[in-house]
Amino acid sequence: MGHIGEAVTQVLIPVAAVIGIGFALLQWLLVSKVKVSPAAETNNGEKCEANDGGEEGVDHGAEAAKCAEIQNAISIGASSFLFTEYKYLAIFMLVFGIIIFLFLGSVKKFSSKSETCNYNKNNICKPALANAIFSTIAFFLGALTSVLSGYLGMKIATYANARTTLEARKGVGKAFSTAFRSGAVMGFLLASSALLVLYVAINLFRIYYKDDWEGLFESITGYGLGGSSMALFGRVGGGIYTKAADVGADLVGKVERNIPEDDPRNPAVIADNVGDNVGDIAGMGSDLFGSYAESSCAALFIGSISSFGNNHDFTAMLYPLLISSMGIIVCLITTLFVTDFFKIKTVSQIGPALKNQILISTILMTGGIAIVSFVALPSNFTIYDFDKEKKVKNWHLFFCVAVGLWAGLIIGYITEYFTSNAYGPVQDVANSCRTGAATNVIFGLALGYKSVIIPIFAIAIAVYVSFTLAAMYGIALAALGMLSTIATGLAIDAYGPISDNAGGIAEMAGMSHDIRKTTDALDAAGNTTAAIGKGFAIGSAALVSLALFGAFVSRAGIQTVDVLSPKVFIGLIVGAMLPYWFSAMTMKSVGSAALKMVEEVRRQFNTIPGLMEGTAMPDYATCVKISTDASLKKMIAPGALVMISPIIAGTFFGVQTLAGLLAGALVSGVQVAISASNSGGAWDNAKKYIEAGASDHARTLGPKGSDPHKAAVIGDTIGDPLKDTSGPSLNILIKLMAVEALVFAPFFATRGGLLFKWF
Amino acid sequence: MGHIGEAVTQVLIPVAAVIGIGFALLQWLLVSKVKVSPAAETNNGEKCEANDGGEEGVDHGAEAAKCAEIQNAISIGASSFLFTEYKYLAIFMLVFGIIIFLFLGSVKKFSSKSETCNYNKNNICKPALANAIFSTIAFFLGALTSVLSGYLGMKIATYANARTTLEARKGVGKAFSTAFRSGAVMGFLLASSALLVLYVAINLFRIYYKDDWEGLFESITGYGLGGSSMALFGRVGGGIYTKAADVGADLVGKVERNIPEDDPRNPAVIADNVGDNVGDIAGMGSDLFGSYAESSCAALFIGSISSFGNNHDFTAMLYPLLISSMGIIVCLITTLFVTDFFKIKTVSQIGPALKNQILISTILMTGGIAIVSFVALPSNFTIYDFDKEKKVKNWHLFFCVAVGLWAGLIIGYITEYFTSNAYGPVQDVANSCRTGAATNVIFGLALGYKSVIIPIFAIAIAVYVSFTLAAMYGIALAALGMLSTIATGLAIDAYGPISDNAGGIAEMAGMSHDIRKTTDALDAAGNTTAAIGKGFAIGSAALVSLALFGAFVSRAGIQTVDVLSPKVFIGLIVGAMLPYWFSAMTMKSVGSAALKMVEEVRRQFNTIPGLMEGTAMPDYATCVKISTDASLKKMIAPGALVMISPIIAGTFFGVQTLAGLLAGALVSGVQVAISASNSGGAWDNAKKYIEAGASDHARTLGPKGSDPHKAAVIGDTIGDPLKDTSGPSLNILIKLMAVEALVFAPFFATRGGLLFKWF
Repeated sequence: MGHIGEAVTQVLIPVAAVIGIGFALLQWLLVSKVKVSPAAETNNGEKCEANDGGEEGVDHGAEAAKCAEIQNAISIGASSFLFTEYKYLAIFMLVFGIIIFLFLGSVKKFSSKSETCNYNKNNICKPALANAIFSTIAFFLGALTSVLSGYLGMKIATYANARTTLEARKGVGKAFSTAFRSGAVMGFLLASSALLVLYVAINLFRIYYKDDWEGLFESITGYGLGGSSMALFGRVGGGIYTKAADVGADLVGKVERNIPEDDPRNPAVIADNVGDNVGDIAGMGSDLFGSYAESSCAALFIGSISSFGNNHDFTAMLYPLLISSMGIIVCLITTLFVTDFFKIKTVSQIGPALKNQILISTILMTGGIAIVSFVALPSNFTIYDFDKEKKVKNWHLFFCVAVGLWAGLIIGYITEYFTSNAYGPVQDVANSCRTGAATNVIFGLALGYKSVIIPIFAIAIAVYVSFTLAAMYGIALAALGMLSTIATGLAIDAYGPISDNAGGIAEMAGMSHDIRKTTDALDAAGNTTAAIGKGFAIGSAALVSLALFGAFVSRAGIQTVDVLSPKVFIGLIVGAMLPYWFSAMTMKSVGSAALKMVEEVRRQFNTIPGLMEGTAMPDYATCVKISTDASLKKMIAPGALVMISPIIAGTFFGVQTLAGLLAGALVSGVQVAISASNSGGAWDNAKKYIEAGASDHARTLGPKGSDPHKAAVIGDTIGDPLKDTSGPSLNILIKLMAVEALVFAPFFATRGGLLFKWF
Repeated sequence: MGHIGEAVTQVLIPVAAVIGIGFALLQWLLVSKVKVSPAAETNNGEKCEANDGGEEGVDHGAEAAKCAEIQNAISIGASSFLFTEYKYLAIFMLVFGIIIFLFLGSVKKFSSKSETCNYNKNNICKPALANAIFSTIAFFLGALTSVLSGYLGMKIATYANARTTLEARKGVGKAFSTAFRSGAVMGFLLASSALLVLYVAINLFRIYYKDDWEGLFESITGYGLGGSSMALFGRVGGGIYTKAADVGADLVGKVERNIPEDDPRNPAVIADNVGDNVGDIAGMGSDLFGSYAESSCAALFIGSISSFGNNHDFTAMLYPLLISSMGIIVCLITTLFVTDFFKIKTVSQIGPALKNQILISTILMTGGIAIVSFVALPSNFTIYDFDKEKKVKNWHLFFCVAVGLWAGLIIGYITEYFTSNAYGPVQDVANSCRTGAATNVIFGLALGYKSVIIPIFAIAIAVYVSFTLAAMYGIALAALGMLSTIATGLAIDAYGPISDNAGGIAEMAGMSHDIRKTTDALDAAGNTTAAIGKGFAIGSAALVSLALFGAFVSRAGIQTVDVLSPKVFIGLIVGAMLPYWFSAMTMKSVGSAALKMVEEVRRQFNTIPGLMEGTAMPDYATCVKISTDASLKKMIAPGALVMISPIIAGTFFGVQTLAGLLAGALVSGVQVAISASNSGGAWDNAKKYIEAGASDHARTLGPKGSDPHKAAVIGDTIGDPLKDTSGPSLNILIKLMAVEALVFAPFFATRGGLLFKWF
């Protein structure tokens, strides 16, 4: 065949994964050199000592101790929330695992008889019962890996935040390095372990499935479902947690009491910082892991019913995993550019350095894709294209992956343009604060709507090119391409909340104004990159969802999804409505949890004597409990909506309506998600623009406390649930419904559409 | 055939139309009995005298004179704006008429040779050139009727507003009667003249087309395009006008200067009142006329290629017009219930009376539909269903129309539930004002999102039932059913802004608190019914758009619109984006025009001595000019987006992509429109809830000027462009793109898809 054989592939993938994990551990080692413990490690594990602190003596030691104390409080709060959340999720996992087993098992009435394969009629496939069992196992694997990703991310972030604060005393370069390395730990650990678990699972499943690759990769799709369903609850729960605390803290602290953000007198301040870690870090980690797992599964499934699978060409079959392996290596080199080749020296270098990371990884990866495509693929092959086979060449697949990769870059850059206050759009929004909060909100909403245009065209072009070249397989590859630099993407994403927390710790520990200024600069750059990260997450979710949609349609044996059929159309319009229903629930949850938080914070300020003067401690624990309870209680309904809708549609209305539902949710949800994220990001940065007062224009709007600034704070608060709860959760909605449809496709195809059968 | 013949039909339709017009004139006569002229009618036509004014002497005469003066100012402002707008529109009409002629003429290279028909192959059809000519004529007819509808509506409203104010002195019953009768004038005049023009056009076109009904009803579709394109500019232009003035007036007057709404010292107050008439009245009139014309055209076109057309069964062919004729009679009886059978005596009766109008007309119309269906239709016939014929019975069509009618009622009532402050949702939003504007906005957005759920299910059910019974013809009939009670719907709609203006005039004329209280009560009821009217408009737009989509697909010869085809999918996702792009433009336009207005109003308050004290007059004209200029300049870009998108999609990407575009815009736009309208309506009424202080709960939030009230005012201001500019314009977006695609279908089908042909 001219391309590398199975033996080489079996070595390359795990080696890449192990290199990635090793690199992550190395970064961790470098971060851990910043000591925060004053003496020997005690039972809490993270006591305080400032290294190099000797120069200025006892002052530094006290600061470090204070930092350690706060870090500890945040870490304990985050861990305890995640453990409570995971307890709930364990129940969900168990119940849903049983549902998967029962639904899929019932397709052939739990028969353990092997049958002719669905697609490759010359082959004998394992029984449907095996599919039920292995899909359930894969579901558990995906769920556990997702939970692990979120948890590890949170651990790393809470390990790194105080260290970043302490390094800020030595200058911006050191602090940046610590924050970025910590982000890289998370990025590489997550990308590598996702790859490794998937790789190992495929090889283990193969021991049973042997030559039945259809069955093998059908059941592997459970991995994506497990990953995404955990991500959903993580994002929604974490999102409600963090924004209830944030909105609650801001409304009383900043607006009513006029004390700064992260002031230790604010009773909700610990909950707020915990929220950053469980929402932005753990949620984002689970989310992107889910996208990665799903796009891989979609590509693998379609590959298995194409000539790769039919010819049992293992290397070509694992092309998606080889792309991800290459991605890890490329990202590793990319990271060196910012940590070793060009060190950050001034504040103004941070933003460009982070942006360059994305550009460098995209350029390098383009070469990487070319290499993988030419060494791992035969030069001619066929791809399953619904009812026919499509002839494809290896360089076609190169273009599919590359178009996704570059579309991601465009989406990222456009997102930055619309949410960074270095450009016109956010400055316009800031300017509209002159006439009050109402015009600020109107302009911000309009900005969010406008920011949808170019990303949608980028996605449309990526879809058209990749579909034309390689049908639905091409779209799965485009999604994978967008996610191939996930390690770098996650490193940048995680960098944001770590810097944010570092600033919070500096404020709470009462550190000097200079240090706070350094952490603020780190944070500001992080804000923009967070927006870019969200752009990536949404763009890739759209492609992933479409790829899963294609896999579902293939597996359900549908030939066309005709909008002119009423079954499809009602699915389409109801599907387009679901993102609104879902957003209504999540936003209202944030709103009502925030109301409770406001009342508690007000109560503490009113009843605890000496709190405002700083002589008494607030009761942080009650605020943590309000956020925890609200998020756990309120994540159930929106989660259920997403999990149950496809099952109801498929069971009662059949695969056609379900296909319509998925398409509707996809095309509508992606708009709501992008506009919500970007409106929120713009309001946040408009406020920061006024606060920073770095230009003549900005100074006419400020300073803090001026009327325009107050208007900007209102916009920022409105944006919080949009950008950190509803918006990012919608990515998961559209992906999760599609992967769920895919996993349950055999059931829906044979037993679905009850309502139409009855009437 | 057992059903009524052509001769009877030829009499019934014009008779119904004439009865409707007569009834409208009768109502006008009754309204005109309220005199506002002190002496003989002078050249301005509307000078002042209070009839019955003698009882209290000169005071009343002065009031009436003041009212007349203000009414005159509003009327002149509105007329002059509409004339300027129509000048622009005349140019657009001319250019677009030429485009229609050239595009459609080029289909067969301007050949004047008759050819075999497309659908009924046994028949000879008129040449494509005739289609180009008659489509263009129909386009002009539709455009002119639309313009006339808007203009007449505005004239009636500005004729009625001061009369309502003056009648308010005699009690709520008289005032209500005047406002409602004036609304009825508009409703009946519009519904009847739309029917009459369409009827006459069909008969005139038939002189040329003779037996070629395919060609006849193909060219009649131009009528819908003309109506809707004027409506688009009317809605967008009027919407920007009214909200720029409203937001500008409120931001300075209410928020900064603490003077009441409609205070004559506010320089933007005349512009604000003019805006109500050109935006809400003229815009709404054109909009609903467009919907009516389009749903009729869609039904007629599909009918013409079904057995009605093939058998030349004129009565069955004009079934849609017979339904509308019955609608006029039913609405006439319905109106008597509120004007004659049960007179309004107290304020609390107003709301229920208006709601009952909708219920009564729906119940009566259900019977009316049954009668028309059984006397006008053969018992068995076939309907065109893409590539096949569908066998249908007359009672099937009854259900199609009825399901649309009742879906409209459900949408109306749900809209009321979510936007009236008598129910929980709005009270929740009001309650969230306790913690400031940010939570108010979060809750209001969530409410808007949530309010989408049931209307979408109602639309989905209507689509499913009507499509299953009679394919795309059924959907057109469902749309027609929803619009069959348009005369009553419009009467209620127009009642709102008339009462609003009446209140404004009372305030400006310095009339007593009691009168202002009466007009406020009228206005409050009008607010809720306005929301119901918007619900109807959106629901019917969704159905109309789908019916037009079906007609387009039929005419373009498309058999399936497969989401799995990349050409369709890119259309779908880009189409779903268009409502966002469009909203971004319109909202930003309102925002920036409002900024200018704010600056002008501030300037006048700061530079005109004695303005705040009421000793000097403000310069109303400058504010009117700002609104006029802004709306005319800013309506071009969003209008162009809507008009050009289908042409680009069809010409360069072909009919498949265009079909996807329409479906995407439809399923996404309807959600944006409903949520925007209802969020806006809820904020408005939450503010009114706090201001009215009619319950213990409301009183804890008020009074005017309290912090929660200030937060509520911010929400109201944000809602203004959402509910009166973006939201309602989106109805037109989805309809207009579909009807445009339908009219240009022959061109796109033969010459379209250039880009794919080149590559």
